[in-house]
Amino acid sequence: MELEELGIREECGVFGCIASGVWPTELDVPHVITLGLGGKLGMGLINHVFNADSLKKLYVSNLGIGHTRYSTSGISELQNCQPFVVETLHGKIAVAHNGELTNAVRLRRKLMRHGVGLSTSSDSELITQLLAFTPPLENDDTADWVARIKNLMNETPTSYSLLIMHKDIIYAVRDPYGNRPLCIGRLIPVGDMNGKGKPYVYTNIHTPMYYREVLPGEIVKISRYDVQTLDVVPRPEGDPSAFCIFEYVYFARPDSIFEGQMVYSVRRRCGQQLAIEAPVEADLVSTVPESATPAALGYAQKCGLPYVEVLCKNRYVGRTFIQPNMRLRQLGVAKKFGVLSDNFKGKRVVIIDDSIVRGNTISPIIKLLRESGAKEVHIRVASPPIRFPCYMGINIPTKEELIANRPEFHDLANYIGADSVVYLSVEGLVSSVQESIKARKENENSLKTQKSRVGKIGHCTACLTGEYPVELEW
Amino acid sequence: MELEELGIREECGVFGCIASGVWPTELDVPHVITLGLGGKLGMGLINHVFNADSLKKLYVSNLGIGHTRYSTSGISELQNCQPFVVETLHGKIAVAHNGELTNAVRLRRKLMRHGVGLSTSSDSELITQLLAFTPPLENDDTADWVARIKNLMNETPTSYSLLIMHKDIIYAVRDPYGNRPLCIGRLIPVGDMNGKGKPYVYTNIHTPMYYREVLPGEIVKISRYDVQTLDVVPRPEGDPSAFCIFEYVYFARPDSIFEGQMVYSVRRRCGQQLAIEAPVEADLVSTVPESATPAALGYAQKCGLPYVEVLCKNRYVGRTFIQPNMRLRQLGVAKKFGVLSDNFKGKRVVIIDDSIVRGNTISPIIKLLRESGAKEVHIRVASPPIRFPCYMGINIPTKEELIANRPEFHDLANYIGADSVVYLSVEGLVSSVQESIKARKENENSLKTQKSRVGKIGHCTACLTGEYPVELEW
Amino acid sequence: MELEELGIREECGVFGCIASGVWPTELDVPHVITLGLGGKLGMGLINHVFNADSLKKLYVSNLGIGHTRYSTSGISELQNCQPFVVETLHGKIAVAHNGELTNAVRLRRKLMRHGVGLSTSSDSELITQLLAFTPPLENDDTADWVARIKNLMNETPTSYSLLIMHKDIIYAVRDPYGNRPLCIGRLIPVGDMNGKGKPYVYTNIHTPMYYREVLPGEIVKISRYDVQTLDVVPRPEGDPSAFCIFEYVYFARPDSIFEGQMVYSVRRRCGQQLAIEAPVEADLVSTVPESATPAALGYAQKCGLPYVEVLCKNRYVGRTFIQPNMRLRQLGVAKKFGVLSDNFKGKRVVIIDDSIVRGNTISPIIKLLRESGAKEVHIRVASPPIRFPCYMGINIPTKEELIANRPEFHDLANYIGADSVVYLSVEGLVSSVQESIKARKENENSLKTQKSRVGKIGHCTACLTGEYPVELEW
Amino acid sequence: MELEELGIREECGVFGCIASGVWPTELDVPHVITLGLGGKLGMGLINHVFNADSLKKLYVSNLGIGHTRYSTSGISELQNCQPFVVETLHGKIAVAHNGELTNAVRLRRKLMRHGVGLSTSSDSELITQLLAFTPPLENDDTADWVARIKNLMNETPTSYSLLIMHKDIIYAVRDPYGNRPLCIGRLIPVGDMNGKGKPYVYTNIHTPMYYREVLPGEIVKISRYDVQTLDVVPRPEGDPSAFCIFEYVYFARPDSIFEGQMVYSVRRRCGQQLAIEAPVEADLVSTVPESATPAALGYAQKCGLPYVEVLCKNRYVGRTFIQPNMRLRQLGVAKKFGVLSDNFKGKRVVIIDDSIVRGNTISPIIKLLRESGAKEVHIRVASPPIRFPCYMGINIPTKEELIANRPEFHDLANYIGADSVVYLSVEGLVSSVQESIKARKENENSLKTQKSRVGKIGHCTACLTGEYPVELEW
Repeated sequence: MELEELGIREECGVFGCIASGVWPTELDVPHVITLGLGGKLGMGLINHVFNADSLKKLYVSNLGIGHTRYSTSGISELQNCQPFVVETLHGKIAVAHNGELTNAVRLRRKLMRHGVGLSTSSDSELITQLLAFTPPLENDDTADWVARIKNLMNETPTSYSLLIMHKDIIYAVRDPYGNRPLCIGRLIPVGDMNGKGKPYVYTNIHTPMYYREVLPGEIVKISRYDVQTLDVVPRPEGDPSAFCIFEYVYFARPDSIFEGQMVYSVRRRCGQQLAIEAPVEADLVSTVPESATPAALGYAQKCGLPYVEVLCKNRYVGRTFIQPNMRLRQLGVAKKFGVLSDNFKGKRVVIIDDSIVRGNTISPIIKLLRESGAKEVHIRVASPPIRFPCYMGINIPTKEELIANRPEFHDLANYIGADSVVYLSVEGLVSSVQESIKARKENENSLKTQKSRVGKIGHCTACLTGEYPVELEW
Repeated sequence: MELEELGIREECGVFGCIASGVWPTELDVPHVITLGLGGKLGMGLINHVFNADSLKKLYVSNLGIGHTRYSTSGISELQNCQPFVVETLHGKIAVAHNGELTNAVRLRRKLMRHGVGLSTSSDSELITQLLAFTPPLENDDTADWVARIKNLMNETPTSYSLLIMHKDIIYAVRDPYGNRPLCIGRLIPVGDMNGKGKPYVYTNIHTPMYYREVLPGEIVKISRYDVQTLDVVPRPEGDPSAFCIFEYVYFARPDSIFEGQMVYSVRRRCGQQLAIEAPVEADLVSTVPESATPAALGYAQKCGLPYVEVLCKNRYVGRTFIQPNMRLRQLGVAKKFGVLSDNFKGKRVVIIDDSIVRGNTISPIIKLLRESGAKEVHIRVASPPIRFPCYMGINIPTKEELIANRPEFHDLANYIGADSVVYLSVEGLVSSVQESIKARKENENSLKTQKSRVGKIGHCTACLTGEYPVELEW
Repeated sequence: MELEELGIREECGVFGCIASGVWPTELDVPHVITLGLGGKLGMGLINHVFNADSLKKLYVSNLGIGHTRYSTSGISELQNCQPFVVETLHGKIAVAHNGELTNAVRLRRKLMRHGVGLSTSSDSELITQLLAFTPPLENDDTADWVARIKNLMNETPTSYSLLIMHKDIIYAVRDPYGNRPLCIGRLIPVGDMNGKGKPYVYTNIHTPMYYREVLPGEIVKISRYDVQTLDVVPRPEGDPSAFCIFEYVYFARPDSIFEGQMVYSVRRRCGQQLAIEAPVEADLVSTVPESATPAALGYAQKCGLPYVEVLCKNRYVGRTFIQPNMRLRQLGVAKKFGVLSDNFKGKRVVIIDDSIVRGNTISPIIKLLRESGAKEVHIRVASPPIRFPCYMGINIPTKEELIANRPEFHDLANYIGADSVVYLSVEGLVSSVQESIKARKENENSLKTQKSRVGKIGHCTACLTGEYPVELEW
Repeated sequence: MELEELGIREECGVFGCIASGVWPTELDVPHVITLGLGGKLGMGLINHVFNADSLKKLYVSNLGIGHTRYSTSGISELQNCQPFVVETLHGKIAVAHNGELTNAVRLRRKLMRHGVGLSTSSDSELITQLLAFTPPLENDDTADWVARIKNLMNETPTSYSLLIMHKDIIYAVRDPYGNRPLCIGRLIPVGDMNGKGKPYVYTNIHTPMYYREVLPGEIVKISRYDVQTLDVVPRPEGDPSAFCIFEYVYFARPDSIFEGQMVYSVRRRCGQQLAIEAPVEADLVSTVPESATPAALGYAQKCGLPYVEVLCKNRYVGRTFIQPNMRLRQLGVAKKFGVLSDNFKGKRVVIIDDSIVRGNTISPIIKLLRESGAKEVHIRVASPPIRFPCYMGINIPTKEELIANRPEFHDLANYIGADSVVYLSVEGLVSSVQESIKARKENENSLKTQKSRVGKIGHCTACLTGEYPVELEW
């Protein structure tokens, strides 16, 4: 729950859609894009991205890409808004980008050395100008965008999921490490109209529209006629893929499907694993609604303890912990989380939370539960402590602010007022995530399927372990 | 869930707070009021009520009352905003009002006959001017506000919960029928500072701040020193109280306490009662998150079926059913409700919903579940069908729009695409609500406690049965 | 020019219009009202008065009244917006009001003593409720609004110009002292369509739409059929009328017609009179554009000196004297007033200004002229110094801020950096204003016309002399 | 007056300022820039250019440049806002630009051929990227911005006035033809502080701050220490300069100084010339306020007729000619222009206007004057008819809309309802503009001053004659 309070999240999301003769029609495409982006972050911020002018143009549209950006910093929204559009000799290209280039500084200098002035600090402009610039350009009358995209991918291996729109084509591209998610869906569900639904691409895609993931390194061409793999750019020999493990822990919607598994199921397994690693003698298991609920159900089932609701969330209340004094914060928590005291009075309660980052948002909840009659309050956290910064697109507090790097961490239970507190281990998290992927791979191998083009499976745990998937450049 | 989609709700809510030397201080009161109102409906609308000017005045405040109003109709927000403040010979009074006067038309004419022009169509102005006007005024140098309030209550028996602020006093008043809720809380929780927390009043108050309800007909005087009952105005002989039963079904937060019982517990009992009235052979029970969850847990427990999550709600998506065509609505539902297909593929599912009003919002969900692999989908509704208008402050669709009054209702399962659909009976709802109240009353009686001043317990079921607690005047 | 810089003005203006079958049609009325109000103060503020809701209702309208109010103080615009509308037993009435009641405090208490709560501090609500309340009401089935209006006028003799709308009638009323202006125009100019143009009423009306003034004390009934005098309420025996003399000096547009004379002509006469009272040996006469230009032309003509432009006004610059330091103020003046140095280099310049109030806005202009080559700069002010507050609707700085009440006034030329400075005398102003009125009256008398119903002619010079037209009540 | 009604104007204006130890200080610079831009177009639009973010940065500033753009078209303001800033290998450069490149299309293609994607359609981005790109860049460690600027000027000879900011320097550049104005001023007026005032640059600069013009083709380097000419890029052999003649006619403030003469004086000479070309037997001369007033005074003086005000302009009224029907337009004119009928009743009136473009804004004024008693109304226009489009930065109606290209032009007096109408001849305009320039040059020549670096003097009269100063490229 603290991740939400702190506003920690991916910096952005991307979405694209192509019209077909059947559905969506040209009239629908703008609606679909609005819904697609809205699913990620609500209508409010869309206005920052689609300004009045572009919305008008969107009214009828054969295809489109969109982008949502969180105002995580003071940097002018105006300058860094996406999609970034430039006119080139071969027509306009638009680029929407999710992720963060680990070698952006070097690439910026390279472009500037060639005389290209950069008008924003965004990676999206950088990517767009790199695509426009790639030599040999003088005689490049065919404008081989695929060669340009591959060239770009060789220059910068991570992290990005890209949508590149040129004329009536959308190219969907995922970096060779597959750090950021990117999926393809079909707007007409399976079973309807013989599966002829036209495709769309999105960072997270959910059943029943799910069609397939874009693979790490893959370049997919999407037209109104079909979805076609153009190439898969490989990683350096031996490097495993590095999909962000925090997508499973927190960012993704529970119904998202990554690497062949539903996020909800991974979260439940994290809860089960947590029950194995850190059991507790108690009367009931509950959740800080809503993100920790699958883990709580998994924990309860594994322990054989009843799952009971102890808090109800008042959806109309925003971040309540921003209040001028402690008593008002306490009152804010009481407005945000109703206490269902009848359900736990006199009982020993285990609360599953998805993460504890700075450690000061769980304590008023614990206080509230105790004041309402809980006999004991044990905290179990369904992810390991965050200790390191992310350089691949996630906005995380500075190292000094992270509770795991502070003295209070040595007596955390006391600090937050709990009877006990235990985090899931890194190994436990990784095994919860990889268990069914490995099972499926082994199954595939035993079936002598051809070697997967994706290579060795791994996950980026940099924020937990400090092990970054590529060497960081400055 | 449809009640939420349709925007059906109480027209307004009221909140008041008094500062004490301890806490809240004068600096806190505006924050507390903002939080109090915000708990009901979010910051957005508060700006409509507290304009820039009044917010400045609120910066430091000994006491205050607030009011939130939903923009349910096209009527000018400006003119009908509350609290309504007038200057009288005995100082300013401010009135915040929740409810709707059943004899407003007659009272308006009465005032106008005395030469008072009414500048809005709101009951709040009417109430305020009635309080200002009450004779005998010429010699009323003492400004007996209690006499004026009693006079008002005799003129108009329902429905209203009022907060009347005059100088450093807040009068909290509930109509003799107790139709609208009104509770008193203490901002410093029990156990803290010897329970000396200063009081506040609110339509819904939640554990652990709960102090007590204002009784039907009661006039409570709240000062910085104490909470004092001034009088209890009785109902006509024989009339039972008429608290709105839909507060239990839908409006109130689950942690609210009315008539000595937690709303969450009533909802769970409704689910249990529904399991008795309408069992079904199935593999699992689930909910349309989030309002129906207590009922779903009750139903599952009574049936002995597992409770499983089948939908996850994307909180950033607004009302999605307002889309230009059916396919976009379907896509909107898929954005709003993620389908956790792994949890129910090939299973027979019972979905508990809190209400079906017009009948066209549950059907895309059923379609979604079926397309994602549900073998059967049975709908059980934890309240009876709404058939009649409310004249006491709830905004309900017109009679013709209500599904229960339409031909489709005769084959509702088919209309919404379910395998079966059953509503809770009116008797089942009433008994779920009154069961523990009656038990407690019997217990009190057996203990020979004095006769309750509240009189016979009843509930307003007008929207379900057409039986209104008072004769309606036009 | 300083009056404009200081934002000194009438607090408000009123405007009403009735549709006819010819023109304006019902579709035009909202446009006409918007133009009518806009003529006074620009579109910006109209939105404060006509909120979105009322504008929609205005889309088609048989008749309407409007009001513009200047946000001169921190008082909530919302609460005091006009027209004030109340429902009475005899239908809705709307009142728009220009002026300020000198006995408002007593009348407020009177109404409150009858049990009417007042929700704003505005005179408009007071007037509206007084009209609604006037006894005998119990049996007043005919709703004799004229009797009510006369009753109101007897209770409060000044100052107000009122538009009262009831059903399809607009009553236009001017207080018995005629302190505020109110005129009737015809939207179809004379000569067009046989003069059958439908009437409108406005504080200032200009040729060629001018029809006639509402007389002091007159009640005019305007319907779509005709304009009809209902009554003229007299002043106390012997009291002269008291039209605000500053309308001539500054407030009114130069093309307005009051008391049978064009404001432009009065201002030119003020300049001529000033030339008689305070001649100066110089090379040219000029103006601080634009309000002082008629006086400057009059002065130049009387003196026989050439009239030359020395400053050009940049219309896009707002109040420039509000700058954090003197040099920026100086720069602001240079942006607002271009210096046409070729026109006056090496010359002795007389600058005519309409008023000097606090004395610190003319000095940067004088500095600018000297730096650009003026040999001498003499200031002549076409009105007497303001020394007293206005209680009849004009927003004037406090007595202490007025330069005429400060020590600097004794050496004003030195203080503002001029070679000399002289104000017009009060007698000079009054004679410039009354000269042609008296001539016309004598002419009428010699023609044995019946005695004017308006009585003795006078003007309110309270802000100059401290002689108020009525005794002030507190 | 019609130019103003039609919103015809320069597309933009530029302004820059550098702080000194004396004045302006670093704290003042943002204020000075705001005033500088505001002088051109009012505070409203500045917000479009300085967004919230940049304004904060402006709070303290050593130097700055600004730009104002008129929303003349539907093109997204966001994308084309200035100053355009890019990061280059040698630091950030910011470019503010007034004018329009006549070979923009070719230059865009050239840049794109080198792989630079262009994100907007603005010339400012084009200029900025051309400056960033200019080879040889690989070894250009010294970042010779002057060489880059000269290179740019050779690539595109017209039309632009540029401010280029790099580190603590502002380069002020005017195209070799001098089509757009650009001047240097000093913020501390002559005579104050020994003339050590620090410089600023602006499209128009007014006495007494005027220092000097930037010459056609000149590159001026402005630092906090001094103003230094770096080079003057020549025009092709034999080409005269081509300063926009409409700056004199309409765009510039009357107190602006171009080519050594005050605009006001040129306009008065235009009026005198018009009196020679098109005299008329009449009683008085007047103006459509305010832009035609200098010409009217010149005309009156030359003819020996009295100059009298016939219209007063109500400054609070916007463009009134945009009204749904003719009568409302007429009413709008009556609101915008008060008619001072006493001044001209029964007289023959000559009205001087600055321009007639489409011909439908003067006619309601003529109608108004006639209805108010004018015996004859003769129109004299102080500029020749506009017949051709401008490709150098002025927004002019399409050729078909220009009255001079329409059949009505053959009987224009009748079309607009005047007794006669005559425009100034092109020769008359040119001689009015060049007369004193030539006199001064001859004087300089006779004094054996060195040959002016500016070359042959000419003016761009393209919109009047179709003779463009350079060949137009498409």
